[in-house]
Amino acid sequence: MTKKASGLVAVARLAGVSTATVSNVLNRPELVAPATRERVVAALDELDYVRSGAAVALRTGTSRLVGLVVPDITNPFYAAIAEGVTAAADDAGYSVALCVNHDDPARERRQFELLAQQRAAGALVVPLSAGSSRLSTLRRVGTHLVLVDRIAERDEGCSVAIDDVLGGRLAVRHLLALRGPRIALVNGPRTIEQCANRRAGARKELRRSGVDPDTMTELTVEEMTIDAGRRAGNALAAAGGVDGVFCTNDQLATGVIRGLADAGVRVPDDAAVVGYGDLALATDGPLPLTTVSQPKLLMGRTAVETLVREIGDQVDGGREHQHSATLFQPSLVVRDSAPAT
Amino acid sequence: MTKKASGLVAVARLAGVSTATVSNVLNRPELVAPATRERVVAALDELDYVRSGAAVALRTGTSRLVGLVVPDITNPFYAAIAEGVTAAADDAGYSVALCVNHDDPARERRQFELLAQQRAAGALVVPLSAGSSRLSTLRRVGTHLVLVDRIAERDEGCSVAIDDVLGGRLAVRHLLALRGPRIALVNGPRTIEQCANRRAGARKELRRSGVDPDTMTELTVEEMTIDAGRRAGNALAAAGGVDGVFCTNDQLATGVIRGLADAGVRVPDDAAVVGYGDLALATDGPLPLTTVSQPKLLMGRTAVETLVREIGDQVDGGREHQHSATLFQPSLVVRDSAPAT
Repeated sequence: MTKKASGLVAVARLAGVSTATVSNVLNRPELVAPATRERVVAALDELDYVRSGAAVALRTGTSRLVGLVVPDITNPFYAAIAEGVTAAADDAGYSVALCVNHDDPARERRQFELLAQQRAAGALVVPLSAGSSRLSTLRRVGTHLVLVDRIAERDEGCSVAIDDVLGGRLAVRHLLALRGPRIALVNGPRTIEQCANRRAGARKELRRSGVDPDTMTELTVEEMTIDAGRRAGNALAAAGGVDGVFCTNDQLATGVIRGLADAGVRVPDDAAVVGYGDLALATDGPLPLTTVSQPKLLMGRTAVETLVREIGDQVDGGREHQHSATLFQPSLVVRDSAPAT
Repeated sequence: MTKKASGLVAVARLAGVSTATVSNVLNRPELVAPATRERVVAALDELDYVRSGAAVALRTGTSRLVGLVVPDITNPFYAAIAEGVTAAADDAGYSVALCVNHDDPARERRQFELLAQQRAAGALVVPLSAGSSRLSTLRRVGTHLVLVDRIAERDEGCSVAIDDVLGGRLAVRHLLALRGPRIALVNGPRTIEQCANRRAGARKELRRSGVDPDTMTELTVEEMTIDAGRRAGNALAAAGGVDGVFCTNDQLATGVIRGLADAGVRVPDDAAVVGYGDLALATDGPLPLTTVSQPKLLMGRTAVETLVREIGDQVDGGREHQHSATLFQPSLVVRDSAPAT
């Protein structure tokens, strides 16, 4: 504030007017005589007074602000995406408005209205359960949207995601090569796109290896937690006869190992376990996890670059923008829970 | 953009002018005849066209944007603070610009310049190694600052922090009551204020209990990781004769338990271990940790409220602002690694 006041004072002095007049020129120029207005505008220019994103935003219609919409910033997967997003935004000269919605559409709508008021240039949206209708509601607010960790449907916009079908294939291929064809899948609800895709990859790989995918034991949990994994591990041990367990996140894998151990089934000697995610949990536990690693930082970075390109296409005055869908490949990180063959 | 274009078109139609004229009224009103300008302004108002934070920012000097400056958003402690900050900002009608600096002053300065250009109303700064000089550099950029997880020095500004001396006392009090006076401290570098304060609390509590604080075994690690904790646990087991180990974060506690187990020292039967932080790691491991819990969400929330109050004091035209230092108490969460006495 001190800064602004002294700036106004300097401008007023240079233009030979009162600070109230400078303020009027900035806010209600119609009240100021043209000759006076010109003097003040010249002084403003000379002193580079309004080095203000707000002025730029009024002129261009957008500011150097992009929204990042995530369900939960305490989830390390979304935090890793945010890390990549903020790094790329720094490089591109954008600020990142962090919007945490906890999958609450009302909260998300309020955040988007605020972003629109601030003339945000666009937003990166990591949807938990976004249907297309919800996204198009957000789009009506007027910003460019890039979907992250979700493949956009045709004409829906740009997207940056990870090939979860391939991830499922990598996990099951490793388990099949390591021990044998009796594979179990511990998975979250199939209504979550990522869960459905990881399962599809697992089944695909079994089929390619000549194993009937319907022979795969499938356990579905509501919440993909360590506790749910432990119960699944208990159940698998009771059923007996499993060579490898593919868990669709690292929490489930951690729990499954513990649940198998409860019943005396040792990992990896008696059964191998592969997780998904490669977050801190994968290496924090006593038995480091073999897991599918997603390029989270790269995904965040690319999402920003995709958005900046889309904004640029628009600023260049109608150069036709072609939506893009970028799909990154995951990789398998081999550790102790399912060692190298 | 479509939205903006159609908005301009609608305004132009209502005012009976071209869209170029509407654009001139918005950007270079001095070019437009007063009567025309009045018609356009009336149309803008009628259509609620510029419901724009940018316009508000130009008028008031600030926008409804606050910065959140953290060293690393993938660190779950900072992510938890961000969670509290975004929730409170939502309630107060502010957006949060997430600035991740990885303790790089140059990167931080660029972020602050961008925040200043965007007329951010202020910023919440969670410093890793901030000296006062660095903070005053940031303050010169012109935004209000609130320090988070660090007690501000006199006249430095508002701050919201957690009483780490009390945290150290709670941990050692529990260990003393549980088993005996032979306490070990596994700590990070004392140049980190939090580490120094937690140690000071540990020593204070020993003194209060009639134990000479210099009899406490102290192991200092460079990086406060699980691996470093494990090596510390190995060293403690080799030295022998410890009743309780106070680790100044949960990573160290997890490692110490593992390092003690390597040498056949069982936790909690042979020695009790208390961590600090109560992040996911505290409950993710096979042995749930007794740990000092910090009100991270509340700290984030209060930081926003403190900043909003400071901004309000300024907006109310010079009502004198009194800096405040809020210190929250941590609490001990008792789990298996150091059970109830």
